[in-house]
Amino acid sequence: MATIKDVAIAAKVSVATVSRVLNETGYVHEDTKTRVIKAMKTLNYRPNEVARSLYHRESRLIGLLLPDITNPFFPQLARGVEDEIHQHGFRLIFGNSDENLEKELDYLQTFKQNQVVGVISATNDPEATINQDLSMPIVFLDRTGDEDEHVPSVFADSRKGGQLAASEMMKRNSKRITLIKGPAHLRTAKDRFNGALDILSSADVDFHVLTTETFSFQEAQQRAEDLFSIYPKTDGIIASNDIVATAILHEALKRGIQVPSDLQLIGFDDIPHSEWLFPPLSTIRQPVYEMGKEAAKLLLKLIKNEYIEKSTVQLPVSFIERQTTRKVDNNE
Amino acid sequence: MATIKDVAIAAKVSVATVSRVLNETGYVHEDTKTRVIKAMKTLNYRPNEVARSLYHRESRLIGLLLPDITNPFFPQLARGVEDEIHQHGFRLIFGNSDENLEKELDYLQTFKQNQVVGVISATNDPEATINQDLSMPIVFLDRTGDEDEHVPSVFADSRKGGQLAASEMMKRNSKRITLIKGPAHLRTAKDRFNGALDILSSADVDFHVLTTETFSFQEAQQRAEDLFSIYPKTDGIIASNDIVATAILHEALKRGIQVPSDLQLIGFDDIPHSEWLFPPLSTIRQPVYEMGKEAAKLLLKLIKNEYIEKSTVQLPVSFIERQTTRKVDNNE
Repeated sequence: MATIKDVAIAAKVSVATVSRVLNETGYVHEDTKTRVIKAMKTLNYRPNEVARSLYHRESRLIGLLLPDITNPFFPQLARGVEDEIHQHGFRLIFGNSDENLEKELDYLQTFKQNQVVGVISATNDPEATINQDLSMPIVFLDRTGDEDEHVPSVFADSRKGGQLAASEMMKRNSKRITLIKGPAHLRTAKDRFNGALDILSSADVDFHVLTTETFSFQEAQQRAEDLFSIYPKTDGIIASNDIVATAILHEALKRGIQVPSDLQLIGFDDIPHSEWLFPPLSTIRQPVYEMGKEAAKLLLKLIKNEYIEKSTVQLPVSFIERQTTRKVDNNE
Repeated sequence: MATIKDVAIAAKVSVATVSRVLNETGYVHEDTKTRVIKAMKTLNYRPNEVARSLYHRESRLIGLLLPDITNPFFPQLARGVEDEIHQHGFRLIFGNSDENLEKELDYLQTFKQNQVVGVISATNDPEATINQDLSMPIVFLDRTGDEDEHVPSVFADSRKGGQLAASEMMKRNSKRITLIKGPAHLRTAKDRFNGALDILSSADVDFHVLTTETFSFQEAQQRAEDLFSIYPKTDGIIASNDIVATAILHEALKRGIQVPSDLQLIGFDDIPHSEWLFPPLSTIRQPVYEMGKEAAKLLLKLIKNEYIEKSTVQLPVSFIERQTTRKVDNNE
């Protein structure tokens, strides 16, 4: 690989001159600049990013910490982050934390050791992360609400999402609702649940709350079996997320329950496969890819010390009407 | 952050001594070593990985290049790679190439600029990658066959997988088969197709070949509509992968076709959601997570210059019997 010295020799200038051209600092005569750039092209010179980063105290690596890339929610998020930072010449170091605080903190340390200049983290414990005193900006994703307006974060309006799921269900005449409560330690799950509760508690319907500890298919399948035993006449289920909704749909179809004519179902997230199911799943869409992009945009501003009007970014949710819900009857 | 000098002062030794303890080179008296380690712990000293990497010409970053992390096949692969390298103290820089050669080559260059010491790549053009002369080991994933025994690669036995799909279909009495041919530029798709053809061409069945250009749900949905028009009596479909199978299942159910009693369906890959579908999808399992792990193991050996018996690793495929195929009738 050509070095900066090779370029200097080829262009008949000093190393300092090449350096000024590279970094666009100081004065360089146009002709000299042209000659240097030509030499770089001819020699296929590529700056050693690590040496540059030590010299300028400026690397182009960003760390992304997700619970688990195999959970269908997270690839879109990762893609949004990567697409945005790629445009600005940054690259992504990535880790799976498995919601394990020790593993998260370990990743944050190794990110730092690798000269990462900013982190995006979907952690359940923002406070523990902040306490690491990493001396670099962090943007939290999907995991904080409006508790602390000063902690940079990007999230969707989960409470609104829960309200929307419940009100769309109400419009469609289910009277014996099941509301599935997601993992208690996840803020977004709590918000969704409370939003749905806002609507259901003041509506004229019976409803049943089913708790879950995780968002996994296996647990949801088990809970669905329980549900159809204890509340067989349920006619409308508001699931904690799409994976859970998928398990419920699976169990309902297995029992010959007609969806949506006997049982309506609304999920949450709008992961890609929700559209592929049969019947395709009605759900509340979180703009996951956009969340990734916005987190990346916010982080890049923080890294460059640019002015930021608002450090929390809330993205809107929307109801995606597919075929696990009936059409709204406008005559009723 | 504490520096190596702070540790030296606290342990009352020279910086050179601390360095010897850190790198486990040269002689250090046991008591001195204990004192140095104690000082490191007390000061929470963490070596600056970048400086170490320049000094030792040894970084701990690995680059992973995938077409698109949002394709349900790739998160498991990424997870397998990351889990393996994490154990050995390595971290992952990750990029989406979108099957675009220019984007791939650009990533490879920036990986190199960031002192990545090895790369795992699911590229469609291994030759172009090798020609980059990156001076670091590369392991190819899922994208090469046995054409070149010397190119380090990990892949599943796709041809066997195609044969398996076709023979399992044959055992179950479908007589009017549709074989879906995956993207022509993907080696694994060609191998699957040819494997199925090995079996179908010598069997006593009618069969129809349906071509596709991608593995996308949207295209498959369109092709499924075409198929049910031109070959409405097809009673057994061998899909090019699970996403395509999902679209076919969706279209079949929409038309009221009974699966599996009137139409059997076999996919390929065994992505997580195949089990969640209703009816759950019979398919050929590629051990995706294990492929990621094996690629990482192979790369780590190459990085450490260890002896490698065989630089190509082929993993076995298996038939996963679910409910889009009928039970084998042992009396026939």
